[in-house]
Amino acid sequence: MLVTFLSDFGLEDDFVGTCHGVMKVIAPDVEILDITHGIQRHGVLQGAIVLANTLPYLPKGVHLGVVDPGVGSDRRGIALRSGDGRMFVGPDNGLLIPAAEKLGGIEAAHEITNEKYLLDHVSATFHGRDVFSPVAAHLVDGVALEDVGPRIEPESLVRLEVPKPDVSHRRIRASVLYVDRFGNMQLNLTRKDLEALEVVPGTQVELEIASERYYAVAARAFADARDGEIILYEDAYENIAIAISGGSAADTFFSAQPGVDVRIRLAD
Amino acid sequence: MLVTFLSDFGLEDDFVGTCHGVMKVIAPDVEILDITHGIQRHGVLQGAIVLANTLPYLPKGVHLGVVDPGVGSDRRGIALRSGDGRMFVGPDNGLLIPAAEKLGGIEAAHEITNEKYLLDHVSATFHGRDVFSPVAAHLVDGVALEDVGPRIEPESLVRLEVPKPDVSHRRIRASVLYVDRFGNMQLNLTRKDLEALEVVPGTQVELEIASERYYAVAARAFADARDGEIILYEDAYENIAIAISGGSAADTFFSAQPGVDVRIRLAD
Amino acid sequence: MLVTFLSDFGLEDDFVGTCHGVMKVIAPDVEILDITHGIQRHGVLQGAIVLANTLPYLPKGVHLGVVDPGVGSDRRGIALRSGDGRMFVGPDNGLLIPAAEKLGGIEAAHEITNEKYLLDHVSATFHGRDVFSPVAAHLVDGVALEDVGPRIEPESLVRLEVPKPDVSHRRIRASVLYVDRFGNMQLNLTRKDLEALEVVPGTQVELEIASERYYAVAARAFADARDGEIILYEDAYENIAIAISGGSAADTFFSAQPGVDVRIRLAD
Repeated sequence: MLVTFLSDFGLEDDFVGTCHGVMKVIAPDVEILDITHGIQRHGVLQGAIVLANTLPYLPKGVHLGVVDPGVGSDRRGIALRSGDGRMFVGPDNGLLIPAAEKLGGIEAAHEITNEKYLLDHVSATFHGRDVFSPVAAHLVDGVALEDVGPRIEPESLVRLEVPKPDVSHRRIRASVLYVDRFGNMQLNLTRKDLEALEVVPGTQVELEIASERYYAVAARAFADARDGEIILYEDAYENIAIAISGGSAADTFFSAQPGVDVRIRLAD
Repeated sequence: MLVTFLSDFGLEDDFVGTCHGVMKVIAPDVEILDITHGIQRHGVLQGAIVLANTLPYLPKGVHLGVVDPGVGSDRRGIALRSGDGRMFVGPDNGLLIPAAEKLGGIEAAHEITNEKYLLDHVSATFHGRDVFSPVAAHLVDGVALEDVGPRIEPESLVRLEVPKPDVSHRRIRASVLYVDRFGNMQLNLTRKDLEALEVVPGTQVELEIASERYYAVAARAFADARDGEIILYEDAYENIAIAISGGSAADTFFSAQPGVDVRIRLAD
Repeated sequence: MLVTFLSDFGLEDDFVGTCHGVMKVIAPDVEILDITHGIQRHGVLQGAIVLANTLPYLPKGVHLGVVDPGVGSDRRGIALRSGDGRMFVGPDNGLLIPAAEKLGGIEAAHEITNEKYLLDHVSATFHGRDVFSPVAAHLVDGVALEDVGPRIEPESLVRLEVPKPDVSHRRIRASVLYVDRFGNMQLNLTRKDLEALEVVPGTQVELEIASERYYAVAARAFADARDGEIILYEDAYENIAIAISGGSAADTFFSAQPGVDVRIRLAD
């Protein structure tokens, strides 16, 4: 059984390497698969989306997630088991919930309180190292979920508000969920939402982003559009995204931050 | 046998981690060595050079390379075997060829068509995950190269045009191939080219970069020059490069992008 | 036994991947744990601090460190054994010393001279690949420290000057040691130094950074302060650091580079 690891720690500092080390001291044979550590700082929603998108492609294991703006406060640390036998470890701020619900639902939830499975000294600012990595390593090493602390009600877990789109047959009002390295902007839409507007590959649409209007075309792949053309496409995780063929949408739409409104309607 | 992995995916997103996961699901014991994922976006030539530079230092294995601006078009996916027993997997856009030719030549080439070795659903935008990672994992797992699809003629493979320098005994006209993190600019030259101009460590030369002239000195190592001095040296992959001792050539020559012309002549 | 690896190579280029490959060719079963490769270019002091901070959390092994502005000069390559049985490999520029001294002291030091344990061709610019990685792999593989080259006196090793703070009961003059990805600025102070000034969590202080004055509060954790408040806190490695709750101190104090002076006194 392996540990997968997602965080907003970046790779410039030692945070990720130190967490690997802590796990290796406890469980020398543990294998660690880094999903990414490039989640935007404190981007709990982005982290939750990436975790839910990617886990179906990853081996079952202990899924460690640390995007933790509330470290040092009284937010709980939690360990979960989902219906398909995966385990999740991280802060109780919503990060782990969409993935766990997608993968069989939350079958058991425990608050992390058993000091036996933490480092001897727990700092106020780095629970990734002192709490979550040790617990993940102990779980991989065979410790039972029940031993990390008392059972809690799944209903009591903190949940994120994922922005919902407003879809009618005339227009869609959506939000940017996040922007990837290629500048592609993922929206809170699926193919079904576009179909309600009768948008299919080839349809011309009008986008409004931060009060500016642009023409775009729905496309199946970047290669179906001319260089520089703005496209609306279903990305590899089956979310609708905005891209510029051969360019960067994020560089073009300077306001392309997560949370920004995007309106879509059929072009005249 | 391990998989080495090079791409332009960056580490900010989940792309690399997800590909690792896909390989681990298919071949749980596979070991993956990341060469780099920092190839410039769509930098097929840069990726090809880095792959050819580095593979001689790496264990033999299945060499997965994904720099793939044509994903979703009709460009082919390919799997190759080179004369020294290595295998290569990636898009048919030239990325894999210089490395394979350097390491024994292309002994066999197959187009990837056998759906048995791909993910069940192949997206239009992420063949790294859906096509190339699964094929690499199956090859490591013992699937024969012949099984991934029909044999194709090595001559039919797409090849890159590597810019050739213009070398005379009076001046050299070269191109920047790429720029590394330290700001060092690798040129399409070898020591032999410099020797044609009678440039050896210690020789003063004049560089012309984007119509600006600079004095530089040929040197064996950074430590042989004074801080701030521009040097021309043979880098660790036996290519000639431009650097600034204790500084960054790329920060100094703002136009130092791949493809930029560099002229070299003996200083008066 | 594993190799841990810290450098200023970054991940944009192939440097780290190539070093991994060199180690894997020599010792196919070696496990490599990357601490970080994000040390500031030529940041020997920063690298030394990060190594000393993190190693206590990592498994014992061969600790490879490469931050090497003097590559190609006559600076020595060294291999050390510390009192607690760890080994260290890297340049003789001070990088390895604080960690080795913290972990049992330097028990044996050898200069790397035995060409049997280097790559066949040693370049003038990439000893990480040609010298240090091969030696680390051979040590993990069972080669004795004594075999890499002649014993040298620990007293002859190059040592770094770590800036010392000036602490009185009225004010502290400290330096920024380094700045992490979150913009937190680590100072050359410990909790003891702050206590000499009678600063404890909750105390208001005045900071002077590059001639500008700011009010800050000593806090236990980010969560104890209001968003936007400047805090002085003990970080996870028990160093005192400056942060902005919910923000980035480095973005606010534009001069927040390593080496910058910070003065602290009690607020009126």
